[in-house]
Amino acid sequence: MNYNDKSRNHRFYGICRSGTGKTLRLLLGHKEAEIVWYGSRSYIDKRYSDVFGNMFEIVDDKCLDDNMDELAEKADVIFTATPQGLCASLVNEEILSKVKIIDLSADFRIKDVSVYEKWYGIEHKSPEYIKEAVYGLCEINREDIKGKRLVANPGCYTTCSILSLYPLVKEGIIDPNTIIVDAKSGTSGAGRGAKIPNLFCEVNENIKAYGVTTHRHTPEIEEQLGYACGREICINFTPHLVPMNRGILVTAYGNLTKDYTYEEIKAIYDRYYASERFVRVLEKDVCPETRWVEGSNYVDVNFKIDERTHRVVVMGALDNLVKGAAGQAVQNMNLIFGLPEETGLEQPPMFP
Amino acid sequence: MNYNDKSRNHRFYGICRSGTGKTLRLLLGHKEAEIVWYGSRSYIDKRYSDVFGNMFEIVDDKCLDDNMDELAEKADVIFTATPQGLCASLVNEEILSKVKIIDLSADFRIKDVSVYEKWYGIEHKSPEYIKEAVYGLCEINREDIKGKRLVANPGCYTTCSILSLYPLVKEGIIDPNTIIVDAKSGTSGAGRGAKIPNLFCEVNENIKAYGVTTHRHTPEIEEQLGYACGREICINFTPHLVPMNRGILVTAYGNLTKDYTYEEIKAIYDRYYASERFVRVLEKDVCPETRWVEGSNYVDVNFKIDERTHRVVVMGALDNLVKGAAGQAVQNMNLIFGLPEETGLEQPPMFP
Amino acid sequence: MNYNDKSRNHRFYGICRSGTGKTLRLLLGHKEAEIVWYGSRSYIDKRYSDVFGNMFEIVDDKCLDDNMDELAEKADVIFTATPQGLCASLVNEEILSKVKIIDLSADFRIKDVSVYEKWYGIEHKSPEYIKEAVYGLCEINREDIKGKRLVANPGCYTTCSILSLYPLVKEGIIDPNTIIVDAKSGTSGAGRGAKIPNLFCEVNENIKAYGVTTHRHTPEIEEQLGYACGREICINFTPHLVPMNRGILVTAYGNLTKDYTYEEIKAIYDRYYASERFVRVLEKDVCPETRWVEGSNYVDVNFKIDERTHRVVVMGALDNLVKGAAGQAVQNMNLIFGLPEETGLEQPPMFP
Amino acid sequence: MNYNDKSRNHRFYGICRSGTGKTLRLLLGHKEAEIVWYGSRSYIDKRYSDVFGNMFEIVDDKCLDDNMDELAEKADVIFTATPQGLCASLVNEEILSKVKIIDLSADFRIKDVSVYEKWYGIEHKSPEYIKEAVYGLCEINREDIKGKRLVANPGCYTTCSILSLYPLVKEGIIDPNTIIVDAKSGTSGAGRGAKIPNLFCEVNENIKAYGVTTHRHTPEIEEQLGYACGREICINFTPHLVPMNRGILVTAYGNLTKDYTYEEIKAIYDRYYASERFVRVLEKDVCPETRWVEGSNYVDVNFKIDERTHRVVVMGALDNLVKGAAGQAVQNMNLIFGLPEETGLEQPPMFP
Repeated sequence: MNYNDKSRNHRFYGICRSGTGKTLRLLLGHKEAEIVWYGSRSYIDKRYSDVFGNMFEIVDDKCLDDNMDELAEKADVIFTATPQGLCASLVNEEILSKVKIIDLSADFRIKDVSVYEKWYGIEHKSPEYIKEAVYGLCEINREDIKGKRLVANPGCYTTCSILSLYPLVKEGIIDPNTIIVDAKSGTSGAGRGAKIPNLFCEVNENIKAYGVTTHRHTPEIEEQLGYACGREICINFTPHLVPMNRGILVTAYGNLTKDYTYEEIKAIYDRYYASERFVRVLEKDVCPETRWVEGSNYVDVNFKIDERTHRVVVMGALDNLVKGAAGQAVQNMNLIFGLPEETGLEQPPMFP
Repeated sequence: MNYNDKSRNHRFYGICRSGTGKTLRLLLGHKEAEIVWYGSRSYIDKRYSDVFGNMFEIVDDKCLDDNMDELAEKADVIFTATPQGLCASLVNEEILSKVKIIDLSADFRIKDVSVYEKWYGIEHKSPEYIKEAVYGLCEINREDIKGKRLVANPGCYTTCSILSLYPLVKEGIIDPNTIIVDAKSGTSGAGRGAKIPNLFCEVNENIKAYGVTTHRHTPEIEEQLGYACGREICINFTPHLVPMNRGILVTAYGNLTKDYTYEEIKAIYDRYYASERFVRVLEKDVCPETRWVEGSNYVDVNFKIDERTHRVVVMGALDNLVKGAAGQAVQNMNLIFGLPEETGLEQPPMFP
Repeated sequence: MNYNDKSRNHRFYGICRSGTGKTLRLLLGHKEAEIVWYGSRSYIDKRYSDVFGNMFEIVDDKCLDDNMDELAEKADVIFTATPQGLCASLVNEEILSKVKIIDLSADFRIKDVSVYEKWYGIEHKSPEYIKEAVYGLCEINREDIKGKRLVANPGCYTTCSILSLYPLVKEGIIDPNTIIVDAKSGTSGAGRGAKIPNLFCEVNENIKAYGVTTHRHTPEIEEQLGYACGREICINFTPHLVPMNRGILVTAYGNLTKDYTYEEIKAIYDRYYASERFVRVLEKDVCPETRWVEGSNYVDVNFKIDERTHRVVVMGALDNLVKGAAGQAVQNMNLIFGLPEETGLEQPPMFP
Repeated sequence: MNYNDKSRNHRFYGICRSGTGKTLRLLLGHKEAEIVWYGSRSYIDKRYSDVFGNMFEIVDDKCLDDNMDELAEKADVIFTATPQGLCASLVNEEILSKVKIIDLSADFRIKDVSVYEKWYGIEHKSPEYIKEAVYGLCEINREDIKGKRLVANPGCYTTCSILSLYPLVKEGIIDPNTIIVDAKSGTSGAGRGAKIPNLFCEVNENIKAYGVTTHRHTPEIEEQLGYACGREICINFTPHLVPMNRGILVTAYGNLTKDYTYEEIKAIYDRYYASERFVRVLEKDVCPETRWVEGSNYVDVNFKIDERTHRVVVMGALDNLVKGAAGQAVQNMNLIFGLPEETGLEQPPMFP
């Protein structure tokens, strides 16, 4: 087996915590990447393929503890899918001078440290790097990401919500303070922890909302859409747990600032996304479905005008483990290193 | 086997079309009901238990065509779960003078015949009975239902949406024109027709919205909530298809007309529902989940105030095949005939 | 609410551990039963309905520790769904003189204590009661169960396997040492413990065998079928985990001792089961499916002769939480107390 | 988008019928393949991406009718996933002289035309090509496939069953006439036809056997294992439908011809498969699970000796849409054209 070919030009690395199992899978198929460290505090010294049986005979390495100093020597980029607060406590000038960090946790996503500390309930250990960190939503911050040494990889709900709504907010089509985001996620978003609410018989044949009015992705969406319209905004965001493995569907509502035709709004979406490799604006009346993006880095978006209520209903679908996490992390890596943005992300969606 | 004991006092009847398979199951366990006719145009002369294997050795009868005149002689009540427009074309004074009709289709739900004809795209064949028909949402129209001869049994999405929002709209707590209902349904709501979009591999591992801005349950919700607040209203309603068999979850949003505390709104819900046998107002911060009502006639409701956005998030969960259809039909039958309202509906929810 | 009416004649009791959540649900609908004790070591002092949200407003009691002496005073029967070995350590003459015990664990199922200790890896604490205990497979040991004070309620796989094969083994139609039982179970059989292998994303979209050649239900099946044919037998039993909540399907294979026609074998099944309330022998070529028994106490069985290989393929389906556990426990209770055997077990299967 | 790059060296083609949707997805990622024809009788002139929404913006072509003569001019290889009998009726010397055919139907799998006609119930239209056709089970017939012009691509159940059992039968470890194959399949194996038994609510929360003693894959397994042991054999094969999209698990049983140790049998499996790219012999006591091969071309196999019954339990797992159909077809294509066997098949399994 030579999935992880040492002759590749770049050296990359993934800490395997929840999301990074998927980063790893993508990096194995990335022709410029070599994985030099399988980090996992939960499974130190355990064979990676004993934890993830799909990697039997593909990855022979053992899981290692995190040693950022050693990692900074060995790797060109570190993916951190660490518990909230940990990455912020590990990063320093010495490390950042040697290695790029793509952080899949929320530590560097929110610019206002008091907002971060309020919603996450922890003290931020390295607020001095928040400003430097770029919010890694590639389609919006592409130019800023190139060459950066610290990227805050967006959350799954957030990516889907922002990309779906961005053109409308940026162009003033909807009143941003009327936005309601009703989101639905597959269960892989909950991670692999052994908790009763995530058992098969609790999730199967069930749907529920959770974190109503308090979910941590709320301020992240508000901040990024606030940049788009140039002022602070306040929205509703409600996540739901759906009995499926993968996928996020966002259904969002906003009041139109004036009457618009389908063609006018379609033209705006096309202006933003027609040339985007990983955003597909669907055809009229076609609703995004998570099955059509599964296993791929695509976001499918569409909208429907409700003339009766003068609102627009916006829908977006992505795979929470690809564009919602690992895929976007690889996309960010490609941007940082000047590689073609789609490298390692070219798989068409898998159905069924 | 004597499930369908002939010595019971009342004679009842169910046409077996989609929803009525479940009415039948409930009637088998109803100590006052005897089933005298298994109607099904699709399966005429086929044994009922060949169509629904669960009824093997329980129901030995064959499916019969609809013959309303004969039925009116034999039965005390007819359940019609017929295609839109059919019940309206069959009903007449002769029949209604002999038998009660509980119509599970939409034919008599909407009072304004032009609204019905616009949303359903068909001509109404007996508009003269619309006014007489009572909207069979038992918790709201209980007194009107008693003794009635024609009941329009509400839709599944509708029952869940209205019961969740009713106290807030009736008491002026929210501005009804700001209501957004984002609903999620199990796949049994789609019926048993052989259509590609309802195949296992299309539904499983997928979530999608459908009928966006155009779903027929919209005017039904608007009309009933309009009665509650005394004026015409206009809302958004978006249904979604969820990969599970049973259950509907409604997440609804509305702008508060002024600031309210949790205790104030809780007191209102309790005032409406504390003594209701089939509505459970959950405790603070507990979100309704479809698994906790499965197989039962319960609706679980709760709410959460969002002080940041001055909105309230209302949630409701029910089993679309019980309280959302067959269970409510039996509850209506009990009301019509003066039986204890919970007769035949006493099963606790089944988990898992 | 008066689900648990104190005016009933009998006093019954269930320890709520895994399986007994379902015993409880059945007892709530049992017109002769009153529940006087909700036992649960894991949730002592927690409200039962906080653990099982379906019981909100139905059961107001708190969970209590096990106190067998107190229980023996208060109850007529105790259901023990305790970890292996616990019931055996609690039972004694004092208790058995006051109260009946229906044990849902394996402690008293296997007559040969050395076989029990070998397969379960623990010492049996009260072997003196093994002989007295009756194996509570109602259809086979009906007369022995009546009036007994200690019943060993059979396992879920076991009930399905034995009832499917019993007539063929008893009548010498197949060579019992050629029996191979390939069984498939829904995930509720694994209990409600927080373990990674039972998480939704591990079970969903997956099927696997487990406990191959070593599952503890093997000797239980062998012993009971051994009684049927009058000698010790040795079989293969392989359980599989299926991504569904409820249901067990058994597919079993055995070599025919001579050529038989379909009619001959059908006549034998009918002889054993035609008058059995909870065993349905399906019609020719109809395969048992778990959906047709869900939520009910039925076992559906059928067989198919393979003339090419001179084997018979036997199939059985039941709901592992009803006939496979709680339902059979209630059936045993009815037998012990001389109640009609189907009391509280009359629900038709629920589909979907 | 340039998924289907015209500058590639080879020209390939897929008829899109059931299985070929997946062949197509694999060919899009195959660096030597170009798709020149999207055939589908059901969807002629419909855009391929209107049928499979995952291919929106990836495949712009329309579906075409089958025109074998034109196809033979344009393509180097034709994949036929046609109804039984159709490929046999289309093939002729003219076509085979110009193009390779990889037939995913059963038409050329069975060498004895009378066996084919008996199990499939149709007349074979071109028996003269049966002998020429090679059975495309790459790991077994690798050398024979190279350069061949007509390949009979094996069935999904068959591939899994044969590869799991082959070493034991070939080496005489088990008595082939004692083999019982109990197989479990995800629902994608049933195709995309609109049939009631394949609706979500029929399949979900259910497991059933089907085609008991009569499934058409039986003679295919018997023939191939018969070649392995050099004589005609007769086995039991029972397929089951599992509520999941993808995956086949085979659990097979056979009587050992004498006592063997784990190490002896493990050595035999290693001898056959250690150097096979797509067969993974798992470590001791690890059971194959379909989730660990999902989306990949791997077959995971393992075995367990039962010393009590002197049988061996063999297990195999594959993705029915990859190694069980499309993946194996591409592997065959690679062999025919002398490409590295794993080209286009290198994706690691996807979890979850």
